[in-house]
Amino acid sequence: MRLTPYLLWSSRCAIYHLLPPSGYSNMAGLASHWSKSKSARLLISNGTRQLHILSKRHNVPEIVQNLAPAGLHVTCQNTRAFHPGITDDSFIFRQLLDYKSYTYTYLLADSTTNEAILIDPVIETVERDYRIIQELGLKLIAAVNTHVHADHVTGSGEMKRRVPSCKSMIAEVSKAKADLKLKAKDSIKFGQFELEVRSTPGHTNGCLSYVWHEKGMVFTGDALLIRGCGRTDFQEGSAAVLYDSVHTQIFSLPQHFKVFPAHDYTGQTMSTVGEEIKFNPRLRRSKSEFTDIMNNLKLPYPKQIDKALPANMVCGIYDDISTASSV
Amino acid sequence: MRLTPYLLWSSRCAIYHLLPPSGYSNMAGLASHWSKSKSARLLISNGTRQLHILSKRHNVPEIVQNLAPAGLHVTCQNTRAFHPGITDDSFIFRQLLDYKSYTYTYLLADSTTNEAILIDPVIETVERDYRIIQELGLKLIAAVNTHVHADHVTGSGEMKRRVPSCKSMIAEVSKAKADLKLKAKDSIKFGQFELEVRSTPGHTNGCLSYVWHEKGMVFTGDALLIRGCGRTDFQEGSAAVLYDSVHTQIFSLPQHFKVFPAHDYTGQTMSTVGEEIKFNPRLRRSKSEFTDIMNNLKLPYPKQIDKALPANMVCGIYDDISTASSV
Repeated sequence: MRLTPYLLWSSRCAIYHLLPPSGYSNMAGLASHWSKSKSARLLISNGTRQLHILSKRHNVPEIVQNLAPAGLHVTCQNTRAFHPGITDDSFIFRQLLDYKSYTYTYLLADSTTNEAILIDPVIETVERDYRIIQELGLKLIAAVNTHVHADHVTGSGEMKRRVPSCKSMIAEVSKAKADLKLKAKDSIKFGQFELEVRSTPGHTNGCLSYVWHEKGMVFTGDALLIRGCGRTDFQEGSAAVLYDSVHTQIFSLPQHFKVFPAHDYTGQTMSTVGEEIKFNPRLRRSKSEFTDIMNNLKLPYPKQIDKALPANMVCGIYDDISTASSV
Repeated sequence: MRLTPYLLWSSRCAIYHLLPPSGYSNMAGLASHWSKSKSARLLISNGTRQLHILSKRHNVPEIVQNLAPAGLHVTCQNTRAFHPGITDDSFIFRQLLDYKSYTYTYLLADSTTNEAILIDPVIETVERDYRIIQELGLKLIAAVNTHVHADHVTGSGEMKRRVPSCKSMIAEVSKAKADLKLKAKDSIKFGQFELEVRSTPGHTNGCLSYVWHEKGMVFTGDALLIRGCGRTDFQEGSAAVLYDSVHTQIFSLPQHFKVFPAHDYTGQTMSTVGEEIKFNPRLRRSKSEFTDIMNNLKLPYPKQIDKALPANMVCGIYDDISTASSV
């Protein structure tokens, strides 16, 4: 007799939760996940015919263990909900764009607990981002900056005015004002998820990248851009330091990891680690070639820098700027 | 004795392929999928310890069937590669942006066969899109337009010059020139995937939406925009017709389906069917309220219309325009 018990799961939960490596030892976590989910529906079948739909009141672990010896299966009612790809709805991911400074803001959330974080909010688009957060029913717990931007004013302070429970975060070494100062190996937690903080200086001293290991994403700020990188000619910039940051902290990630930068000026919205290793015209080269390229870019002075830098040292709140400059 | 044989799969293949509803009947397809994949690695374990890594020369179906009675498992070496979410790499999805006309171009591809299609290419960004297609090693088989655009010139013709095997596609009723004329219920196939063509007139007569059922996405052109919709005051536009199109063809899709429009002017990159049903300020209303709103928008004449419309009737190729106007 060959028994093939298995459990498929509907849209709210990743399928790997359902297939613990040693049988059904993790069934309790599974059942708890299921009971919290709004859309999950499971059905029992004998392989050809649906026998019973499981409802919230059932004890899933017990049922599954009893089904196995009887040769019955637990499966998901709607196979479409199963497709991996971007139909996984255990999390929310939104890429948002500021047309003026070409900045990407990222909204990440756990769709079970609704806890959300914003990476690199921009002051001009806070109203839009706030509306989306409200419409999606999310609880914003953090506004996280990848670095002290020179090209736009951060929306962290304005967002904190609207959502007082939201904490602003930035690298400790940046010396900018924030509720929480981050350093390498810290974790930023939201719901069941977490981002690993990696230190990637070179564009500025305080540049951080955030790695979402579970979803295979890295938010690279200005350290690594799509087929490019942040400039290294002001704000404590160093081409040699940037080269090492990208090669040791970002190019060491699995090649399928998605790269989400702070900007793109060519209308691309994402890349992968593998693509940048292969095609980044600057960073695929040797360190000395890279340093030569970066030292000869002859870029114009950033448009908003004189306004943006002092504002971003104090979360982008203008009241604080006047105080700061009078000190 | 309780046996729990199961097979996990690495990144190239969706996990549901590995769990056919009635045991391992589909093992042959599975093994063939595995043998084509570059990155897949499988390992055999007894639940606590890795015993053996399967290589390409193994006969996977045979092995799995022999493992089951011995209480052994076949599992994937890198569980991270399994995560659903956007780490599924059975397909490639890229959203691309034209900053001048705020147009989104979408690149979709099957990462096994490398067949790709472009939805709504823009003439000014053909060079960028062509470079990405080359870098990703894709074979572009179609340039698909959602409608005859009035705000930018399509890149279909320019892309066909670079990739002669690429076929241009547009709605039959648009009367525009194209290699393939589409109508409702047609399928656009690329590799293992297909899009369903839906007719969604109202902005223009020939507006089509494309539904990727398997990945839970709909490409809505100008019929449905994020918290908005295309104008209905020229090019055979009709507010009443647009209302019916959106309600019967798009709002009838599952609410978790991702909405990818042809444009967004506010820096949002996607929405969902559920969000638009709930929050679209125009389309959540009654048909008569919607018609009133649309008939009183008082929008300026589109900037590029006099250049764009005649060009888009002939795939955006200027040579053809001069011929067309001399006829």
